[in-house]
Amino acid sequence: MIAEEYKQMLGKKSVIRELSEYGTERAKEIGFENVFDYSLGNPSVPVPQAFTDKLVELATSKNPASVHGYSPSLGIDSVREKIAASLNRRFGIGYEKEHIFMTSGAAGAIAHALRSVTGKGDEVITFAPYFPEYNPYVNKTGAVLKIVPADTANFQINFPEFEKMFSSKVMAVLINTPNNPSGIVYSTETIKKLAAFLTEKEREFGHDIFLISDEPYREIVFEHVDAPYVAKYYHNTITCYSFSKSLSLPGERIGYIAVNPACKDAKLIVEMCGQISRGIGHNCPPSIIQLAVAEIVDLTADLSVYETNMNILYKALAGLGFSCVKPGGTFYMFPKALEEDAVQFCNRALKYDLILVPADSFGCPGYFRMAYCIPTEKVERSLEAFRKLAQDYK
Amino acid sequence: MIAEEYKQMLGKKSVIRELSEYGTERAKEIGFENVFDYSLGNPSVPVPQAFTDKLVELATSKNPASVHGYSPSLGIDSVREKIAASLNRRFGIGYEKEHIFMTSGAAGAIAHALRSVTGKGDEVITFAPYFPEYNPYVNKTGAVLKIVPADTANFQINFPEFEKMFSSKVMAVLINTPNNPSGIVYSTETIKKLAAFLTEKEREFGHDIFLISDEPYREIVFEHVDAPYVAKYYHNTITCYSFSKSLSLPGERIGYIAVNPACKDAKLIVEMCGQISRGIGHNCPPSIIQLAVAEIVDLTADLSVYETNMNILYKALAGLGFSCVKPGGTFYMFPKALEEDAVQFCNRALKYDLILVPADSFGCPGYFRMAYCIPTEKVERSLEAFRKLAQDYK
Repeated sequence: MIAEEYKQMLGKKSVIRELSEYGTERAKEIGFENVFDYSLGNPSVPVPQAFTDKLVELATSKNPASVHGYSPSLGIDSVREKIAASLNRRFGIGYEKEHIFMTSGAAGAIAHALRSVTGKGDEVITFAPYFPEYNPYVNKTGAVLKIVPADTANFQINFPEFEKMFSSKVMAVLINTPNNPSGIVYSTETIKKLAAFLTEKEREFGHDIFLISDEPYREIVFEHVDAPYVAKYYHNTITCYSFSKSLSLPGERIGYIAVNPACKDAKLIVEMCGQISRGIGHNCPPSIIQLAVAEIVDLTADLSVYETNMNILYKALAGLGFSCVKPGGTFYMFPKALEEDAVQFCNRALKYDLILVPADSFGCPGYFRMAYCIPTEKVERSLEAFRKLAQDYK
Repeated sequence: MIAEEYKQMLGKKSVIRELSEYGTERAKEIGFENVFDYSLGNPSVPVPQAFTDKLVELATSKNPASVHGYSPSLGIDSVREKIAASLNRRFGIGYEKEHIFMTSGAAGAIAHALRSVTGKGDEVITFAPYFPEYNPYVNKTGAVLKIVPADTANFQINFPEFEKMFSSKVMAVLINTPNNPSGIVYSTETIKKLAAFLTEKEREFGHDIFLISDEPYREIVFEHVDAPYVAKYYHNTITCYSFSKSLSLPGERIGYIAVNPACKDAKLIVEMCGQISRGIGHNCPPSIIQLAVAEIVDLTADLSVYETNMNILYKALAGLGFSCVKPGGTFYMFPKALEEDAVQFCNRALKYDLILVPADSFGCPGYFRMAYCIPTEKVERSLEAFRKLAQDYK
């Protein structure tokens, strides 16, 4: 019989998807160039040429059986080695191949990480504003996701509320820095404080507490921003990475888990991820994409446009009276709406063909998200629409 | 804390993988050409040139944002349309795009199909000999997998035992034809009888019963073999397909679910698969692979070598006194061992550098599986080793 559990999920349509569909329809009416669509986090800069070159080389000049053959269930050995070496060059942590598990993007990484260290009845804590897909990732493991309210002064961690909510049932804490949707990067001070708190709680409760660090925006950090590598500060860190944003290839579904070598069960967790895959029918990301990415593991697409766009928007919106914490990375910003109800506010923005996402589903009502991964000239042309929108509230 | 459920799975190493690792080690000692490794079902013929050409064309001449961008969660629309059209050309069933869901190979397809129509406490029935990975696929949904013993006379369905085991708890029946490991194709008579039985049971128990048809070997069917398209015979059929074997690209993880349009909930099931993906962190197979495969959807690799190898082996083994039902497709054959204990028998075969897999884990003790997806000249050279092995039992 039809599984009610999944049938019920169909009712709840994603706000982001609905707005993005509206944007596509509206573009058919008035022209794509006239719709200022800030709804979707789809990278706008092209994949690096070196990736394309490697992909073509693999497809045309290597033995097809080795390029297109089955990947081992933990990922291709040489790929895992290259990723470990790259992390060591950058962060000096001492990863080995055995600490790396290849995944289908960050989504696959988080789903595996959660299953490896939580189960029915456990609690997982995350911090608002947060990526709404954390709900299905956590709930489908049998654990419960708890949301710490935002510290809207700076969107760092709200420690007083976090400490109140923490119990012996918490087996994992899930963070995302640089953050979608706030654009904020957790500071070294924040990460140190978090690590000290978790270490203390491990002692108090006598069991491991894992820090699952979701880092698809790691390479998109703006000038002079303090952006610590999380795993350096806490032994039980499971880093979840995706190349979607750094290389502009979100559709190719490629990422990894890196378990901190300082975690006593690090290699065991990686081995377990291979078993978790068996139950969900996921068996490794595509071989040719693994191989191509490994060849250019230290490269990124030209990500500079995101900082350019952020600076233009931040300055303009501040001038129009918006309140906004300045982003430290990603391609999102997270201003306060000009009325209490952000859904109403975003509806009004549609009058000026500005597509903005109300942040209710991110656990932070009253705010809205802008994904400014669009061409700079369009960002500039959108300022007049923001001016008109702000005028409505004068 | 470490999830015991997955930790426990680590103890049980796959026999196939162990044998294949042994083969690799042995090849280092005596040379690859001297090890007759029949353990792994990795296609040996190259991917079609047309696939490579399309992949290169997509990577080099299309807009990178559209080639590497996010795929919709059910798969890329144009890809789903092309697959539906191809199935209609071949089998005349009337699929539309809305009946197709893109998956990470057959593993992803089966895992999604099971989650869409079964749950905790339900039963799923399959038939020995069967692919051992069906255990984690089914058990991790909360359902229980029941195995109908083999009819070793012909490896068609053992209906008397099947009928005895069938209860109102059975929500899905999982079949694999052409079959791994037996190489047998279910006849039209078998499929018709199965469909009539399930239709009767749906009436008796008053609920839907789904037929999940695992068909990665659909294109590898030998001359004059009756190979019906399963969905034509039963309304509630969910077809699970993979391009791994037909196009020789198992590492690229690309396949689909096609739900029979005659199933009243067909489109609902496809929509639900999108929700199932959210919980397991799988979000679509890679975009560029979806797009490339769709361009050559009616092509296959040159699969003729498999029939050539089968004929050589079948004739030779029969001459040596092996008892074996002649395969109708795939690249497997499934002879009876020359002693009761197939594990002992396969151990003895190693003396002659013949790597054969005992069928205990396929639910059929006393038999062994040979994956003859290796070069024909090697098959021919292996015959002397089989002769020596048979001699040991004279």
